[in-house]
Amino acid sequence: MSNITISSELREQVRQAREAYLQLANLGTESKNQVLHAFAKALRANTSKILEANALDVVEAEKMVQSGELSESACKRVMLNEAKVELMAQNCESVAKLEDPVGQVLQATRLDEGLDLYRVSCPIGVVLVIFESRPDVVVQISALAVKSGNAVILKGGREAVHSNRALAEILRQTADDFEEMPINALSLVESRDEVSQLVQMSEELDLIIPRGSNELVQSIQARAQVPVLGHADGICHVFIDANADPEKARKVVLDSKTDYPAVCNALETLLVDRELSPEFLKKIMEDLVRAGVEIRACPDTQEKLEGHSQLEMENASEEDWKTEHLEMVLSVKTVAGLEEAIQHINRYGSNHTDSIVTESHEAAERFMNEVDSAGVFWNASTRFADGFRYGLGAEVGVSTCKTHARGPVGLEGMVIYKYKLYGSGQGAGSYSKGEREFMHQPLKT
Amino acid sequence: MSNITISSELREQVRQAREAYLQLANLGTESKNQVLHAFAKALRANTSKILEANALDVVEAEKMVQSGELSESACKRVMLNEAKVELMAQNCESVAKLEDPVGQVLQATRLDEGLDLYRVSCPIGVVLVIFESRPDVVVQISALAVKSGNAVILKGGREAVHSNRALAEILRQTADDFEEMPINALSLVESRDEVSQLVQMSEELDLIIPRGSNELVQSIQARAQVPVLGHADGICHVFIDANADPEKARKVVLDSKTDYPAVCNALETLLVDRELSPEFLKKIMEDLVRAGVEIRACPDTQEKLEGHSQLEMENASEEDWKTEHLEMVLSVKTVAGLEEAIQHINRYGSNHTDSIVTESHEAAERFMNEVDSAGVFWNASTRFADGFRYGLGAEVGVSTCKTHARGPVGLEGMVIYKYKLYGSGQGAGSYSKGEREFMHQPLKT
Repeated sequence: MSNITISSELREQVRQAREAYLQLANLGTESKNQVLHAFAKALRANTSKILEANALDVVEAEKMVQSGELSESACKRVMLNEAKVELMAQNCESVAKLEDPVGQVLQATRLDEGLDLYRVSCPIGVVLVIFESRPDVVVQISALAVKSGNAVILKGGREAVHSNRALAEILRQTADDFEEMPINALSLVESRDEVSQLVQMSEELDLIIPRGSNELVQSIQARAQVPVLGHADGICHVFIDANADPEKARKVVLDSKTDYPAVCNALETLLVDRELSPEFLKKIMEDLVRAGVEIRACPDTQEKLEGHSQLEMENASEEDWKTEHLEMVLSVKTVAGLEEAIQHINRYGSNHTDSIVTESHEAAERFMNEVDSAGVFWNASTRFADGFRYGLGAEVGVSTCKTHARGPVGLEGMVIYKYKLYGSGQGAGSYSKGEREFMHQPLKT
Repeated sequence: MSNITISSELREQVRQAREAYLQLANLGTESKNQVLHAFAKALRANTSKILEANALDVVEAEKMVQSGELSESACKRVMLNEAKVELMAQNCESVAKLEDPVGQVLQATRLDEGLDLYRVSCPIGVVLVIFESRPDVVVQISALAVKSGNAVILKGGREAVHSNRALAEILRQTADDFEEMPINALSLVESRDEVSQLVQMSEELDLIIPRGSNELVQSIQARAQVPVLGHADGICHVFIDANADPEKARKVVLDSKTDYPAVCNALETLLVDRELSPEFLKKIMEDLVRAGVEIRACPDTQEKLEGHSQLEMENASEEDWKTEHLEMVLSVKTVAGLEEAIQHINRYGSNHTDSIVTESHEAAERFMNEVDSAGVFWNASTRFADGFRYGLGAEVGVSTCKTHARGPVGLEGMVIYKYKLYGSGQGAGSYSKGEREFMHQPLKT
């Protein structure tokens, strides 16, 4: 275990965040929504200030692109304009409209007369959110934190440091106008070194949400002493079953691969049943290539298409099955059938989202039950794996974790529960001695 | 990060456990219950074999008590008899009666015509459970694992190695009689070294549940690369508010402290409002001392009782507020009121279970909202914090974590969910292009 020294300033910042959380946790829905509407107003009023700060970042980011430190697309994500600021303001307003995730009675049980147990949702505590490029994440996460009653510590990328700082300052100043709203529920750290210190704090932080590159998430997961919610890889599969409808297969594969190839829910490996005819396959492959996709296929796939198509295909290697291309490259493998497809996905996949195309209800159910992924789809594009498309109202992140929250995570991923027991002076001894018996009667919630 | 070499045998065992999980995850409720009933039958039929193995452990455990390596009470927990084996069998039968936690539809949304999303509960995967002394945990956890569809790797204490081995063998042999039941869903590791290796496996394990001493849990939490469900400390508080009913206060405090002082939900620190009269306090203190409790009190408490009682009290130190005594010792502190009580608990407590005694509904609600613990009780003993008493049917463990599961955790702590999307060939692109709109209509579950 590496022993990193944690600075006293950072400890103090985290201590203040915890204190703020304890206060924010009990802020009423109305008050929280007022803060969110004030955020929207303040963002609109400070548009020029935000854009000025952003201009400083853009100058730097463009230099970083030239020196190869930053990708073109990351640079674009740093860039703000009036419309984007307006969208941030609207985001705060739409979070205000969401149902309050705190204080929901999840379960209620009468243990005995005058002894009622309630399981009630409550915030988690102090959450560290690490992200890259897009400064609007500052606003999005702050809004979700206020609504869910959590304190957040935000760490953005250095390519957007001025924008992040300006946005955080505007939100904190706005928060300060509300007596009940603790300003320290929202704070920023700016150096990587501070992140290294924070991820080692096991008792002071409750959750880390890293949003960004594979490398970022993996490095956090490896070091963190605290639960981490997120996903590193998104190696999504589509399996075309022997009983697939050709047109559905074509639509699902094309959309999964080409709708937005740079994101985690894009298709990376296409599995095809060996029973499928060359004509079936040919049409999809040609459409993919026409759309600009480079195909890396296994020998069986290449053999099948030989003489049927003039398509250029690269040879797929073992490495391709493990690779999240995140660009217009598709690995293609012919499999012996449903069972091999499931095994391939559970072995090489990343438990993110996988889809089967078939007209067989039985094959679909077996696929959806046996593929061990957060999203298992039937005749639908992997691109549907998204908080907005799922109707969650907001997305905290996408999780490939097996505990707490899985798949696209909405506000419910930022709450847990506590048990409230309402008694009338009882001890537990009388129940173990048999003087009294538990009723364990469900109460209406 | 320490780099421990993981043996190939252990890797193979974990790989087999994962394969077994993927099979067990889809075993039907009926089949799982049949296995559980067969477990019960096999345990009864093998009682003498179990007791023979246990006798070997008891001889060793008694030697360990004499050499000071094992406590008297831990030695007692190793010991089995016919009645205890019968209880193990009954435990399997009662787990069979519980509702299947797998396959529950938690949420259903119509995204569009012919595009329905279901959030369905499913097992977590491969779970490592580490425990001490009591060999009956082998049976209890195995039964819960079968019912929830998870593969478990069990590591018991070396003081019960023969009993654990005999029990695991009986269960595995029984599992082997069922074609669909994968025997490797239940396996045992026996050395601490193997645990050290397992807790470093970040990709191969899904969850670790350590049950046992504070030291055990803390050491796992510090090293694990995988989510850990459990609790280290149980520093529980009772706060007697100025508006407390004397008889309720007496009952709650006495039961919380003396019903079973060696467990995590026992009272460790009593907080008393400074407005309470010496007479009020005196009666409770005298009852505690009569029951055999040693009192460690702050100066204010001692001063208040001076001249009113001949009670012997030790001086409480700062260290006492942080200490889980786990024996008949109680720390007592006078506080200025509700606010100081809440602050003390959030500062020194372990987020386990804390109780207020008061006749004021307002004070109770404020305490329950602002104390950041898994259990917040009003006029009830802290000892009620228990899966059986909560009516959960089974207890996987008690968690002071802030994610996944909190407080006493039943079978629901061993499941997560996956999203099943039933489409008819849709791509996501038509929704972002505005050709179609999402309906996001809740479906009946």
